[in-house]
Amino acid sequence: MANRIPVAVLGATGAVGQRFVQLLAEHPFFEVTALAASDRSAGRRYADACNWVIPGDPPASLREMIVSPLEANLPARLVFSALPADVARIVEPQFAKQGYAVCSNASAFRYEPDVPLVIPEVNSDHLALIARQQETRGWTGFIITNPNCSTTGIVMTLKPLHDAFALKKVFAFTMQGASGAGYPGVPSLDILDNVIPYIGGEEEKIARETRLLLGTVSGKEKCEADITISAHANRVSVIDGHTIALSLGFENPPTPDEAIAVLRAFCPPVDVRGLPSSPKQSIVLRDEDDRPQPRRDRDAERGMAVSVGRVRKCPILDLRLVVVVHNTIRGAAGGSLLNGELLVKRGLVK
Amino acid sequence: MANRIPVAVLGATGAVGQRFVQLLAEHPFFEVTALAASDRSAGRRYADACNWVIPGDPPASLREMIVSPLEANLPARLVFSALPADVARIVEPQFAKQGYAVCSNASAFRYEPDVPLVIPEVNSDHLALIARQQETRGWTGFIITNPNCSTTGIVMTLKPLHDAFALKKVFAFTMQGASGAGYPGVPSLDILDNVIPYIGGEEEKIARETRLLLGTVSGKEKCEADITISAHANRVSVIDGHTIALSLGFENPPTPDEAIAVLRAFCPPVDVRGLPSSPKQSIVLRDEDDRPQPRRDRDAERGMAVSVGRVRKCPILDLRLVVVVHNTIRGAAGGSLLNGELLVKRGLVK
Amino acid sequence: MANRIPVAVLGATGAVGQRFVQLLAEHPFFEVTALAASDRSAGRRYADACNWVIPGDPPASLREMIVSPLEANLPARLVFSALPADVARIVEPQFAKQGYAVCSNASAFRYEPDVPLVIPEVNSDHLALIARQQETRGWTGFIITNPNCSTTGIVMTLKPLHDAFALKKVFAFTMQGASGAGYPGVPSLDILDNVIPYIGGEEEKIARETRLLLGTVSGKEKCEADITISAHANRVSVIDGHTIALSLGFENPPTPDEAIAVLRAFCPPVDVRGLPSSPKQSIVLRDEDDRPQPRRDRDAERGMAVSVGRVRKCPILDLRLVVVVHNTIRGAAGGSLLNGELLVKRGLVK
Amino acid sequence: MANRIPVAVLGATGAVGQRFVQLLAEHPFFEVTALAASDRSAGRRYADACNWVIPGDPPASLREMIVSPLEANLPARLVFSALPADVARIVEPQFAKQGYAVCSNASAFRYEPDVPLVIPEVNSDHLALIARQQETRGWTGFIITNPNCSTTGIVMTLKPLHDAFALKKVFAFTMQGASGAGYPGVPSLDILDNVIPYIGGEEEKIARETRLLLGTVSGKEKCEADITISAHANRVSVIDGHTIALSLGFENPPTPDEAIAVLRAFCPPVDVRGLPSSPKQSIVLRDEDDRPQPRRDRDAERGMAVSVGRVRKCPILDLRLVVVVHNTIRGAAGGSLLNGELLVKRGLVK
Repeated sequence: MANRIPVAVLGATGAVGQRFVQLLAEHPFFEVTALAASDRSAGRRYADACNWVIPGDPPASLREMIVSPLEANLPARLVFSALPADVARIVEPQFAKQGYAVCSNASAFRYEPDVPLVIPEVNSDHLALIARQQETRGWTGFIITNPNCSTTGIVMTLKPLHDAFALKKVFAFTMQGASGAGYPGVPSLDILDNVIPYIGGEEEKIARETRLLLGTVSGKEKCEADITISAHANRVSVIDGHTIALSLGFENPPTPDEAIAVLRAFCPPVDVRGLPSSPKQSIVLRDEDDRPQPRRDRDAERGMAVSVGRVRKCPILDLRLVVVVHNTIRGAAGGSLLNGELLVKRGLVK
Repeated sequence: MANRIPVAVLGATGAVGQRFVQLLAEHPFFEVTALAASDRSAGRRYADACNWVIPGDPPASLREMIVSPLEANLPARLVFSALPADVARIVEPQFAKQGYAVCSNASAFRYEPDVPLVIPEVNSDHLALIARQQETRGWTGFIITNPNCSTTGIVMTLKPLHDAFALKKVFAFTMQGASGAGYPGVPSLDILDNVIPYIGGEEEKIARETRLLLGTVSGKEKCEADITISAHANRVSVIDGHTIALSLGFENPPTPDEAIAVLRAFCPPVDVRGLPSSPKQSIVLRDEDDRPQPRRDRDAERGMAVSVGRVRKCPILDLRLVVVVHNTIRGAAGGSLLNGELLVKRGLVK
Repeated sequence: MANRIPVAVLGATGAVGQRFVQLLAEHPFFEVTALAASDRSAGRRYADACNWVIPGDPPASLREMIVSPLEANLPARLVFSALPADVARIVEPQFAKQGYAVCSNASAFRYEPDVPLVIPEVNSDHLALIARQQETRGWTGFIITNPNCSTTGIVMTLKPLHDAFALKKVFAFTMQGASGAGYPGVPSLDILDNVIPYIGGEEEKIARETRLLLGTVSGKEKCEADITISAHANRVSVIDGHTIALSLGFENPPTPDEAIAVLRAFCPPVDVRGLPSSPKQSIVLRDEDDRPQPRRDRDAERGMAVSVGRVRKCPILDLRLVVVVHNTIRGAAGGSLLNGELLVKRGLVK
Repeated sequence: MANRIPVAVLGATGAVGQRFVQLLAEHPFFEVTALAASDRSAGRRYADACNWVIPGDPPASLREMIVSPLEANLPARLVFSALPADVARIVEPQFAKQGYAVCSNASAFRYEPDVPLVIPEVNSDHLALIARQQETRGWTGFIITNPNCSTTGIVMTLKPLHDAFALKKVFAFTMQGASGAGYPGVPSLDILDNVIPYIGGEEEKIARETRLLLGTVSGKEKCEADITISAHANRVSVIDGHTIALSLGFENPPTPDEAIAVLRAFCPPVDVRGLPSSPKQSIVLRDEDDRPQPRRDRDAERGMAVSVGRVRKCPILDLRLVVVVHNTIRGAAGGSLLNGELLVKRGLVK
């Protein structure tokens, strides 16, 4: 583990920040050299500053680290950002300006025309925007982003189907776990024995981000794919894992068996496959009637794969199927980490 | 409460049977004169024979009643059936043959061309099939049925919209409470911190029963409405209450405001409105962003109303909205009881 | 309902405040003439100011009432307080000084020697302290309090046993519902698939309040009963209802049957029995092996009774048993309301 | 992994059997050579015969194995039994008679005077009974057992305290996860938003097994320790993990700090420490106010450690504390497996 790249986590004490810290402990590419958070936490031991809410304990190697303030002078070359959107909007450009590569899980810059929104298995070519971003903004560093948690599961599933059969329409009904709202997040009185059929902004994010991820980068900016998307977002009584029922319409409609064959054959770019956090299989096909299920499938491939099942005909569009994705691993910290690994692999961070 | 009609409950010890018993205690039209169940329970005190799983206690007036076997010689004129489908298929015709009116919550006869499948607010005219049924089968009694729990919530919501705007397409995405599977039903290890994206037979029932309920009765049989339906059925960690997200396409598409006006104005036939179990409002409109929710809305109008909210445009079809229905009251025992009350009101049981 | 006494609710927008509002709608003794809350809510319509988190909807008659600030000039003679302890400590004396009778659910004054801590069925004679309180403090009004939610369930059960057999030792092991922590209260990530074996301050409250309630009032102050109490307080994944396992040691140990007989025979003072919110039976004995259970028993007698079961020998002390109490009804707003009704009955509020 | 000992799992398709299979895959001492189950499963592929209810998937290496009937002619030298007690009572002696070492998780033989009931860290000397068992019964094989799931967590915690301070009295209040009842086990309608304050036979098992495990083996049989135990067993809405609140009385009462020091210093026999399934720390001390918690602590040391916290004075006895144990790993299959490993280490299986 010699010559690892020094990295920092911004917003290290929150729920997503904790996942970053957990996934970065003992990482072959990266060494955590700073943990930064808001003024309330800065100056305290990490183990004291954070109320650890994910499984296990804070990594022993980082418990004693003193939390830094969110200033762009950290001893790192790459920073992973778990900041809330409003803070990210101010802080992340300061880091990019100072030469840091910023892998952001925040939504603040996802829709900027020159900021890549990337899932390595899906659209790693969008990293080409980085050069354009640096040129336009005069930054020596840059920002790249990963999508919303539900979108990640949806798009990883849609990518091979879109390539093979040309998607036109997507119904996405989500049943999202409570951890998607962070901590303290959803009050228990709202979710025990209940469903909340509303998550603010989520339906719009799913529609727009899906079109961006399956779209193209033409020279200077992103072009959305021509797909119509109708999302229904719901919160259910699940801790981790988003379950998404999809109905899909295509230009060239496949049979369920053809769709399954394409999903099974999916293979990401070769340099993505070898990344430390890459799942061996990006898409795990389940053939039981009643799978995937969030508790039983969210941890597939250490939480980095999506699980897909119930592929069958749709009476209105062409196909129905069900997807499960681990929202705080693949759909947040793990997705951002994979982006960081890809930057290293492609020589964009050294 | 003089001259009440003597009624029996078939399958009185199960979860739906218990709801019948609870709703029939102190009923202005009906007096429970027999509780019947399988041989395992017959001959025992009702309070001993049943493991009461719904809120409250068995009605004091019925605790001591001795459970009868499922034989068509009960001291009643109308029987409410909470039997499982396979038992219902054998037992219910025996009662109908012996002159009993059978209000069945089972699916066994819902699809027979001469057996009415009825929601009083929606298609009370389908009761006209009773005469045909008696003629064809040579029965002095008859069978009428109420639909599946999810379908009840869906169709009560769709009825006024279909009348006003002519439905063509329905996406129905359900998140169903555990009580829909009866008792013992769903193992806790399957539903704690989990979603089961599959309920055997449910998607087909929703499609077919919706078309039948919104269809017509032409002389001798039922004609399905010309509506295409795609259902995704899911079990979630909720006790009572099914939440259903709908996307709807119409011949004459309304705006959300037009749809809301029609839902708000909905008024069932006048003789239905006066029934003892009729809700004052069949459809309760919620205008909060995050309602209806099963725990907070399932008991609207003593569990007999459906609650509807989040009426908004759909990017693919025309409208999106959310429905909550109490599955074991409106969607099962309460729906069947309302059918029984309608029979009395219309003079079909005396 | 002529000549009802005008009352106000302090802290009317919180979870306990909502219960007060729900229980006071259509009350035979009281008419709600003001709803008061913090500056954030004052000046707004009640229906807008409060996020209604308990079942049902805000009473139609109070939805439009404008929320008042927490100032001691409300058009009422009695106020029910659902204020947090730190606010109660400042605000409640202002009302008492201005001549209001204050029935407080807060813990702020429970331990003051001249402030009655009362459960009507248990120690209504402690109201004698009111005269002393007014004299000492120079108030024309006064404050009375009801105990902590767990304590209420425990003491209602212990009272007849203590009178008959002289309690010496109490082990109280609680499994408390989430609503006890108010709203937003317990984060869902802390309680789904989990137990929190800690509730700050609860074990001390249970011990002290139990001794005070079972103690005496000697002239000028309260004397704690000579009972040793060891409490273990836990939060479990339940919405409403606290379940408490007790092991009890007595001066004159009863057999389980003797204890059951005494519990069954329990009868509160005659003027308490007739109060509008009094349960017909204060203690409901369950004889099933596996009852009481919070979901199935919390609503006994509209949530105002305690349910008791599993009365059996204890290998170390004398008796083991299980109690369920509805924590936000009997253990909070309902308990305070009953205190208010008793004040009226005894002529202490006119 | 050469020369591994061939082992079989009896009752391999149930929930505990699945844990055995999961823990035995890739085991350094053992190679699974047979999976046996009831006639309903025998003859089928293991992956088809079992409805996998624990996390992950059946090990790839065993998916294709054909399930054997429960006959004592399996190609193994040691068998792990996850059979229900009534089946175990008949089948296990047949295996012991035929020369197999039987490590049983069933309760059938735990109370036989010549059958060891063992936790390796606690009473490995009880294995001395094996010789006596073989002599008396004329068996060439033998049976050893591990305790009930709750008892395992309790006794691992009590052992060092008993050795140091001489236990006299134990109050044990349990809050047990649903998986302790197997699959399908607890119906969801019984445990969502609920507590069941009763688990048949559990309180008696906890009392008796604790006394046996902390007792001695004198020549020919087991002598129970002289400790009085009062247990209150409850089922809560948790998947895996039993939480137990203890109040303890001693001959030589320690302060909380003295107890903590002894718990922290606990060290099992040297040959136990080196076993493949041994936790590095048998007892993990938590110093947060609100730990241990089942979801956050059950997986400590791969589910093989007990987590202990909230060590504080008890107003009636001497100490109060809280324990969490993973009931299906340490408290069932993992505990039995550790027993099997100890047999190998001590040369009792070769």
